[in-house]
Amino acid sequence: MKTVILHIEFDAIIESLEGLETDQILLIVENSIKQEYPQQIERINNLNSKEVITLFVDGGEQVKEMGTFSQVLDYFITSGIHRESHLVVIGGGATSDMAGFVAATLLRGIKWSVIPTTLLSMVDASIGGKVGLNSTQGKNLIGAFHQPEYVWIDHNFLNTLPEVEWQSGWGEIVKYSFLIPPSKINFHQLQDIKSKQLIASCVQYKGRIVSGDALEEGQRRVLNLGHTFGHAYEKLFSISHGVAVSYGIASIFILLEQKEMLQLWQDIYLGNRCAVAPLPWTRDQFDTEKVFATIQGDKKRVAGAAIKLVTLSSVGNPLVKEISLEWISKEMERVRDELEQLRR
Amino acid sequence: MKTVILHIEFDAIIESLEGLETDQILLIVENSIKQEYPQQIERINNLNSKEVITLFVDGGEQVKEMGTFSQVLDYFITSGIHRESHLVVIGGGATSDMAGFVAATLLRGIKWSVIPTTLLSMVDASIGGKVGLNSTQGKNLIGAFHQPEYVWIDHNFLNTLPEVEWQSGWGEIVKYSFLIPPSKINFHQLQDIKSKQLIASCVQYKGRIVSGDALEEGQRRVLNLGHTFGHAYEKLFSISHGVAVSYGIASIFILLEQKEMLQLWQDIYLGNRCAVAPLPWTRDQFDTEKVFATIQGDKKRVAGAAIKLVTLSSVGNPLVKEISLEWISKEMERVRDELEQLRR
Repeated sequence: MKTVILHIEFDAIIESLEGLETDQILLIVENSIKQEYPQQIERINNLNSKEVITLFVDGGEQVKEMGTFSQVLDYFITSGIHRESHLVVIGGGATSDMAGFVAATLLRGIKWSVIPTTLLSMVDASIGGKVGLNSTQGKNLIGAFHQPEYVWIDHNFLNTLPEVEWQSGWGEIVKYSFLIPPSKINFHQLQDIKSKQLIASCVQYKGRIVSGDALEEGQRRVLNLGHTFGHAYEKLFSISHGVAVSYGIASIFILLEQKEMLQLWQDIYLGNRCAVAPLPWTRDQFDTEKVFATIQGDKKRVAGAAIKLVTLSSVGNPLVKEISLEWISKEMERVRDELEQLRR
Repeated sequence: MKTVILHIEFDAIIESLEGLETDQILLIVENSIKQEYPQQIERINNLNSKEVITLFVDGGEQVKEMGTFSQVLDYFITSGIHRESHLVVIGGGATSDMAGFVAATLLRGIKWSVIPTTLLSMVDASIGGKVGLNSTQGKNLIGAFHQPEYVWIDHNFLNTLPEVEWQSGWGEIVKYSFLIPPSKINFHQLQDIKSKQLIASCVQYKGRIVSGDALEEGQRRVLNLGHTFGHAYEKLFSISHGVAVSYGIASIFILLEQKEMLQLWQDIYLGNRCAVAPLPWTRDQFDTEKVFATIQGDKKRVAGAAIKLVTLSSVGNPLVKEISLEWISKEMERVRDELEQLRR
C-alpha cells in the first residue's frame, strides 16, 4: 500500500478524518500536544461521523517499551474495537513508532494514519512504515513494516516545538542535504536550512525511496546514512536522534577520509543555526572502545565481521561500502580526534 | 512468499536444517517434546553448520500470553542474533502461533519454519502464517500474518500424541471433510477418519486456499467454518479447539436448518472414534445467553449488527452468509436443544 502524504491545515485534517472509511477511530495523543492544542484534540474527539476512543501517552523513547505497548493494546481491546477501526496518532517519532506497531498487531493489523508534530517526525519518522519498540538491548529491535494510510503534515504544530526538537529535526535534514541530488534542491547553497519549505523536499525524497523498497532490501538502505555511528552516539551520550545522526555522518566522512564532504557538512551543519547543538562530548568522555563496542553490538544483527556503511561518491549519489569491523576499530582514535577538532 | 510444506522423516529434517541459508538457528521447543524426543532435539542442537540457540517452553494456550512473548524476545535478543537468523519451532499450534509472532517482530521480521508435533498443528495451525497472542479479552487479538518458509511434517511425532490432542485434531479434520470437494477425497465415504494419509489432503487444501488469499480478504474466510460458535464453546466449556470447532459446525447446521448436513456431521464425527469426545455440556451447563454474549463479543471485531457465518451449499461448496445477531440470539435455545439431543 502506498501512503498518501499531505501538507495540510488542521481544518482539512478534520475533513479527512470525517471521510475515513470507518465508524471508529482509535486516537493516540501525546500529553504535551494535549496541553498545547486542547481545542484541536477536542475537535477530533467530537467528529460528527465517528466514534473516537482516545488514549493519552507521554512521548519520548520510554513510550516504546514493551510494557507501554501492552497497556495500549489492552486499553483498545477492552474498549471494543473491530477490524475496520482506524488508528490515528498525534505526536513525535517515538510515539508514532509505538502506535504504528499497535496498528500492525491489533487484530493482525488495522489501518492507521499519522499527524506528526515534530520536525524529525515530519521529515523522517512518520514516513516509511518502520514501526516498533525498543528492547533493553537496543533501539527498534522489535517491530514490523506497516505503512500508514495517511500522513497529514500540519506545519503549525512546529510553532510550539522545543529547541531540542528543532535541533534533532535539523540533524536529520542534514542527512537529506547529502542524499537529495542538487538538481532537485541544493541545501548546500541555502543560507538557512530552517526554511519550512525544505520539509516538503525531504518528505518527497523519502516517500519516493520507500515506495520503491518498502522492506529495506536495497535502495532504502541509503536512508541509514549516519546511523551506524549515530545510534552509538545517541545511546552513549544521551543526545537526540537527529543530532546523533548528523555527527554520525561527519564520522563516516572522517573514517573514509572524504575531506570535501566533511567540509560541506561543516558548512551546512556548523554554519547554520543548528550549530547551537555543540559536539556533545569532550575528548575525555569519548571512550573509543565503548563507541566501537556499541557499533559492533548494533551490527551483530548483520552476519559476519564486516558491516555495510552508507557514504556518498558525491552529493546526491549515495553508495554502500562494506567495511571490516577490524579496520573501523583501528581508525576509531582518529575519528574521535578529528571530531574533537570540530568543537568550538 | 509461498511456504514449502513437506511430509518428511526426521533424518531429512536434519538435512533441510543443515541446508538453510543462515549460520544461526533460533530453536523453540516444547518441554513435552524435549522429554519424549531427547535424541532428536540433541541432533538439532548439534548441527554441523549452524549455531543453534535453544529455548524450551511449556505448550498450551498460556504460551500465547504477552509476558511469555516478551521473555522469548529478550532471551533471543540477549543471545546475539542477526537479520539472517532463522527461527525454528517444534511443538503444537499454540507454541507455533507464539513463535511465529516472535519471528514476525524480531528485528522487524526474520525467517521461520515449523515442525508441527500435534495433529491439529499438522493439518491446520502450522499452515497459513496466522501468528499471534491471546489477550485477556479473547484469543488471537494480537498478531500478524507471517508465512513460515518451511513446514516439515514428520508423522512419527504422532506416536506419542495424547488422546485429547487426537480428538482436537480430528475435530479440525471434520471441518476439512466438509470443505474439500468429494471428487478430491471423500471423507464421508471413509470408514475411519484416523488414517494418516488424510493429513496430506487437509494440508494440500489449506495450502492452496491460503496461498491465494494470504491476508484473509476473501476465499480464506471459508476456513473459519465452525469457528464462530467454536470459539465460544472453547472459551466457556474449556474444551479443545478442534472439538469446539466440530460442535461449532454442527451448531451452524442446526441454526440454518441444514438437516442433511447435520446428518453427515453425525455420521462422520459421532460415527468415528472421534466420538469418544462427547458433547461437553449438559443442558444445565449450556447457558444460551452466555454463549450468545461470547459470540457477540468475539464479533464486535466486525463492524455492524450482522455477522458473517460460513456454511455450505453442499460438501465442497462453502459459502458465506450474513446473519443478524438478533436472529441468532432468538434461535439460540433451539441450537442448544438440538445439540442436547445429539448427546448419548
